Amino acid sequence: MSPDLSIEIEVVPAFYDIDPMQIVWHGHYVKYLELARSALLARFDYGYERMKESGYGWPVVDMRLKYVRPAQLGQRLLIRAEITEWENRLRIDYLMRELATGQRVNKAHTIQVAVSLATGEMCYVCPEVLWERLGVAAQ
Amino acid sequence: MSPDLSIEIEVVPAFYDIDPMQIVWHGHYVKYLELARSALLARFDYGYERMKESGYGWPVVDMRLKYVRPAQLGQRLLIRAEITEWENRLRIDYLMRELATGQRVNKAHTIQVAVSLATGEMCYVCPEVLWERLGVAAQ
Amino acid sequence: MSPDLSIEIEVVPAFYDIDPMQIVWHGHYVKYLELARSALLARFDYGYERMKESGYGWPVVDMRLKYVRPAQLGQRLLIRAEITEWENRLRIDYLMRELATGQRVNKAHTIQVAVSLATGEMCYVCPEVLWERLGVAAQ
Amino acid sequence: MSPDLSIEIEVVPAFYDIDPMQIVWHGHYVKYLELARSALLARFDYGYERMKESGYGWPVVDMRLKYVRPAQLGQRLLIRAEITEWENRLRIDYLMRELATGQRVNKAHTIQVAVSLATGEMCYVCPEVLWERLGVAAQ
Repeated sequence: MSPDLSIEIEVVPAFYDIDPMQIVWHGHYVKYLELARSALLARFDYGYERMKESGYGWPVVDMRLKYVRPAQLGQRLLIRAEITEWENRLRIDYLMRELATGQRVNKAHTIQVAVSLATGEMCYVCPEVLWERLGVAAQ
Repeated sequence: MSPDLSIEIEVVPAFYDIDPMQIVWHGHYVKYLELARSALLARFDYGYERMKESGYGWPVVDMRLKYVRPAQLGQRLLIRAEITEWENRLRIDYLMRELATGQRVNKAHTIQVAVSLATGEMCYVCPEVLWERLGVAAQ
Repeated sequence: MSPDLSIEIEVVPAFYDIDPMQIVWHGHYVKYLELARSALLARFDYGYERMKESGYGWPVVDMRLKYVRPAQLGQRLLIRAEITEWENRLRIDYLMRELATGQRVNKAHTIQVAVSLATGEMCYVCPEVLWERLGVAAQ
Repeated sequence: MSPDLSIEIEVVPAFYDIDPMQIVWHGHYVKYLELARSALLARFDYGYERMKESGYGWPVVDMRLKYVRPAQLGQRLLIRAEITEWENRLRIDYLMRELATGQRVNKAHTIQVAVSLATGEMCYVCPEVLWERLGVAAQ
């Protein structure tokens, strides 16, 4: 049975996230994704500190967001984040919904690659430490 | 002959854009894209104020960024932005390069649709005001 | 007996709040103050929406922050916010401490004045709606 | 004759700096101050890199902003920054005006202290490297 590689967090847009059109400025969703990703990786004891200790950085190399419905001030949002690739790169898929109605707000994904902190070189295969933390076998 | 629908601007990452890994946090590139898009649309006299006067908002509905090389503090970056679709939606493609070396830093695109400010409804065809400003015919 | 005009919230600095010196960039504390102030005013049913309905905006006209100890990634911070003036202007005092140790991180205050949304004019005395919400008499 | 320890830069608020009240959110002014301070210190060859090389960090320990007039989207702002203390701490005073009218927008100051990067200890007197760069004698 494959492990559950997902998490769900709640986010509430703050005043300083709202633009003159009275909706969340599209660039701020990237922060919400980071919060979800950060919570997800912490669940597997692979947060920023642990990454560093393991000798790898994990820069985002590809990111896509599709905006379905504008988020608004004070609205409670649920973000589900799930790891969907982990062999050569770390892919996380996100689904953001309004808590009250369940309506989709945003759909996104990010792709990260491991970079050796010692050499600065990009890894074409994810390091084993990732698989151990996630409790998965290479795909 | 088709009109030139592009612009090039320079951006320099500020201290507050740099993350603990000593590179620009990936979410801040969205601001740089906005600066380039804003300059591009202003060139065609279709900035935020003009949009509002024309009766349309133009929310970003899709955005993708590919990170090729990390941008750094104080580095001079050139961003070329070009309108590549304008019939049913407004697509802009971006290429970010380091000024000193010409090396690619980021490749991105955004897609915007027109929304009527009067009805709140999304337009499935771009309003004529966009084509007039750009000096283009429908594709 | 005077009413309790304070609130305490918890804030955790996110990755994108951390600067190259591995601490929270000093400008981001202003967001944390806004979160505390927003929670405090919501407690008295005088959040952004209610302000607008009451016919007043409340811009910050003066702000001071004293940084005692740098906040760090993932650190749990407690922010206590208390309304200390409400007659001619709305003054809120903030004290930010590290949850784990109780050590002071930041001490700040903001001053807001009421501006009539109808005329754009600044009020030299706070409007009664503020006092009603707070359950206070004019000082 | 005492040296000129000031600089003036231009800043234009971006779309993502504007809040739902159609003015620059008060927290974003801190970024504008950072841009002015950064340009000022670079003028004396004491930018972030040089600070690090000199063995000191310069955290902001006190900051105050007075908001006189709200800044708006696309408005050209002039910020004058001047070093007014350098013996025990580095104090910079800022005056922000609208370019078109000369009207005051904001008045602010920041205070920084030197921290030894080797020991993490705060210096109660500014290190000589600051005075050398500024071309001043101790006050």
